[in-house]
Amino acid sequence: MSLIVLGSVAFDAIETPFGKTDKIVGGAAPYASLSASYIYPHVKIVGVVGNDFGEDNLKILSDHSIDIEGIQVKKDEKTFFWSGKYHNDMNSRDSLITDLNVLADFDPIIPSSYQDCEYILLGNLAPQVQLTALQRLEKRPKLIAMDTMNFWIESAMDDLKETLQHIDVLIINDEEARQLSGEYALVTAAETIMAMGPRYLIIKKGEHGALLFGDKQVFSAPALPLATVFDPTGAGDTFAGGFVGYLAQYGQVNFQTMKTAVIYGSAMASFCVEQFGTERLQGLTKKEIGDRLRQFSQLSSFVL
Amino acid sequence: MSLIVLGSVAFDAIETPFGKTDKIVGGAAPYASLSASYIYPHVKIVGVVGNDFGEDNLKILSDHSIDIEGIQVKKDEKTFFWSGKYHNDMNSRDSLITDLNVLADFDPIIPSSYQDCEYILLGNLAPQVQLTALQRLEKRPKLIAMDTMNFWIESAMDDLKETLQHIDVLIINDEEARQLSGEYALVTAAETIMAMGPRYLIIKKGEHGALLFGDKQVFSAPALPLATVFDPTGAGDTFAGGFVGYLAQYGQVNFQTMKTAVIYGSAMASFCVEQFGTERLQGLTKKEIGDRLRQFSQLSSFVL
Repeated sequence: MSLIVLGSVAFDAIETPFGKTDKIVGGAAPYASLSASYIYPHVKIVGVVGNDFGEDNLKILSDHSIDIEGIQVKKDEKTFFWSGKYHNDMNSRDSLITDLNVLADFDPIIPSSYQDCEYILLGNLAPQVQLTALQRLEKRPKLIAMDTMNFWIESAMDDLKETLQHIDVLIINDEEARQLSGEYALVTAAETIMAMGPRYLIIKKGEHGALLFGDKQVFSAPALPLATVFDPTGAGDTFAGGFVGYLAQYGQVNFQTMKTAVIYGSAMASFCVEQFGTERLQGLTKKEIGDRLRQFSQLSSFVL
Repeated sequence: MSLIVLGSVAFDAIETPFGKTDKIVGGAAPYASLSASYIYPHVKIVGVVGNDFGEDNLKILSDHSIDIEGIQVKKDEKTFFWSGKYHNDMNSRDSLITDLNVLADFDPIIPSSYQDCEYILLGNLAPQVQLTALQRLEKRPKLIAMDTMNFWIESAMDDLKETLQHIDVLIINDEEARQLSGEYALVTAAETIMAMGPRYLIIKKGEHGALLFGDKQVFSAPALPLATVFDPTGAGDTFAGGFVGYLAQYGQVNFQTMKTAVIYGSAMASFCVEQFGTERLQGLTKKEIGDRLRQFSQLSSFVL
């Protein structure tokens, strides 16, 4: 039994109103797998890096018992590099540099030791790469969750529609939901998107929380009201990792467990934004996570 | 014991993408008092209309056991008139006509039979008028809730700051909270605003629900995800009416009861937007309200 996290492994250089970083570990796979690793012990990454990534950075992952056998190291190439600058409101950012490097022709090879996987998170990548990874699994996992972004909606809609037919849960933000569906109201957008394949849909709304749709039900998860968002990079991937991590740990997939999984994802994401990059996700304690989950409970519980 | 609702009583002419109305009953007081009347039986309006308002329209209120003794009828003047057109996204609107008429020199006279009031909602009006109404109460009510808007923040900040020192709960939307506090993050805005006087603050976020701050706690209430908002006019007043109506009915004011009160307000507001004006608020049943409240419960409950 295991959870595969497929996704980019990157170097990021981030600038926010609070400061800036040199190249630090980023990418969907590190954020999502670190997040999941606090909830479920058998997380395995599929990804690719260049020869510049270094043992130290891989050790950040393996120190959290994350299986890195599926991270290909390309000897003569460089790791995917992204550099971005957040505006003062922290809700928008400019991408300054996007060097695909090893990601340009990424072929997602699944190690045979990963074939026991029951849960998989397809992090944001070309939908064709996501589908290829799926097709290389000998047994269909119990749950296939997927992220995507506006870039693929604009440039690879046919591939995206094909991939959507094979997954269980799509996790996107509100703007992407509107773009993918052509509908403004999120309820209508959700219906349209679920008709494309996924049985469940999570729409992330940043500081406004997240909506979970499926089984003719809706769940509205709050976001923790924060005075300061230090660095929002990776919050969405951290959410997705916490979400699938909880489902893998709990072992049952239904609307009730998914509601709780959304809260786990939200709690993990609320840590992520407290420091630069994956920093906050590297040294969390069980107590911190438990306290944060209870905070979410207090935040949204009421008695009729 | 009673709940006073102070506020405008108006004629509105509304245009939305779904249609348009002639002059229909509007204003903060009708929306809020109709909403409260479903939850608490002793609601009393303080307001003013012109000779054009008509018995039929007053009857809409008295039919819901709302006391209208405090509605002054100005024989030779006209009722406040507002006309507006909503844009396609329903999140923004243009005011086409605003004829203050009787509202221009409104003097809030409190009938002596209203002096038993324990709860008061100061609907959106000049802060000086809101304060005058308060000063005319012989005994300080148990709870004073208040609404205001950007117009007063821009044009009457000194009066507003004075009035804020006398109230318990301020109910405003996110943009108003940012404008009033000069802070972008809502958590910080809330701290700044509560330092101005109110012990509790509710920030309404439209389709994203509402936040309640106070007693060093935060509560995040969801909004019902809707495919169609038919007419958002009065939703905020309906929310405020449901909120104070619940507190008046329950008879205890603390963070726990306020959380539930926010859900009652949200449920009532979710009805309001289903039809034009106060239409939907005129014929609700206890069962419809109970079902809607349970929907809010399902929408946001989870098990850790």
